[in-house]
Amino acid sequence: MRFDVLTLFPELIRSHLDFSIMRRATEEGVISVNTINPRDYTLDKHKKVDDTPYGGGAGMVLMPQPYIDAYEAVEKKEHSITLMMTPQGEPFTDKISNELASYEQIVILCGHYEGFDERIREIIKPREISIGDFVLTGGELPALCIIDSVSRKIEGTLGKIESAHDDSFSDGLLEYPQYTKPRNFRGYEVPEVLLNGNHKLIDEYRMEQKIARTKSKRPDLWKKFSK
Amino acid sequence: MRFDVLTLFPELIRSHLDFSIMRRATEEGVISVNTINPRDYTLDKHKKVDDTPYGGGAGMVLMPQPYIDAYEAVEKKEHSITLMMTPQGEPFTDKISNELASYEQIVILCGHYEGFDERIREIIKPREISIGDFVLTGGELPALCIIDSVSRKIEGTLGKIESAHDDSFSDGLLEYPQYTKPRNFRGYEVPEVLLNGNHKLIDEYRMEQKIARTKSKRPDLWKKFSK
Repeated sequence: MRFDVLTLFPELIRSHLDFSIMRRATEEGVISVNTINPRDYTLDKHKKVDDTPYGGGAGMVLMPQPYIDAYEAVEKKEHSITLMMTPQGEPFTDKISNELASYEQIVILCGHYEGFDERIREIIKPREISIGDFVLTGGELPALCIIDSVSRKIEGTLGKIESAHDDSFSDGLLEYPQYTKPRNFRGYEVPEVLLNGNHKLIDEYRMEQKIARTKSKRPDLWKKFSK
Repeated sequence: MRFDVLTLFPELIRSHLDFSIMRRATEEGVISVNTINPRDYTLDKHKKVDDTPYGGGAGMVLMPQPYIDAYEAVEKKEHSITLMMTPQGEPFTDKISNELASYEQIVILCGHYEGFDERIREIIKPREISIGDFVLTGGELPALCIIDSVSRKIEGTLGKIESAHDDSFSDGLLEYPQYTKPRNFRGYEVPEVLLNGNHKLIDEYRMEQKIARTKSKRPDLWKKFSK
């Protein structure tokens, strides 16, 4: 999977990929992440990429020319999708992550400051994705969430220490509680059922816990699941 | 505002803060971000922080001892809140961000690998927060989203170039479309109303756009707003 990220702050993307599982996945060639800075495509001699909004208002708006020229310079693979990170987009979910993992290439457009000139949307026609109903300084953290989440779905990214299969949402429910050593910590005991080696009972206990948690913490997910 | 982040990958937090608005906010003393690594608190001679789950299953689980000892070593201010980043938590929103911005200190617990030993939840009793219905390698990206979003709410973080006031969600609606120079880009024109300097008409146009977008892209938000 190849990710191409358009961003005015490529360091925010690159610095993150130096650590943890993302580093392993890039070193092993399972994913590759390329950054493109629209500032390198501006025709303005001051390398300007934003300007004040027409009609007034606070903040700066990303100008169409550097952004669209940068986008058009990205070599597109046959099975490629372009995403725009914006609070106006459809909420990102595990289901969308699975869908994205089937592409060869994901191009991600990150904004910064007030937002994109509307014509960037109109001309590129990206799929607009939001990671939640909150506002961030830029699209870089959301882009990294997409890269991390989608990469986990690709074979070869997760080693033996991890497994996407048992994750929350993989079956529409929240995960069951986990326990590890010691058996007794400050008087808090690991539930007996997990210690007796009876896998039928363990599976039953875990499914009960998943259902109970989803019902109490996320009735909206439970409603979808039990339909 | 002081953020204390418990993480096995402090570089993921620190490297992000070296750039953009977060750097400015830390340099100006508006926010400070401290990282604590539970690995430094393990009593195990191999500095082990995780182990296999009781009852079987893939992945590793964070052991209670290093995590809770690290948490207890964090000096708590009077007006402090502790968050755990987990897909099981309540979905993070702009409203929660406003609420969090009123604290003096936010302690953030990041997991990695399969998750936390349940007793970490039981003993610390954090407020559990999720940034969305998808799964990531660890809680570091979600923690950075919280830090970024909450910091934006604190006076002194956003300079004149940015404004949290006009953001999406600040009034429960999505943002209106933005336009900047040039007036004509590849035949795409800036809407006439934004060019005539009539601020009453501009405000009306923008409100109409906000409503139309929210209705079409996020009927769930529109339903809440129009109640």
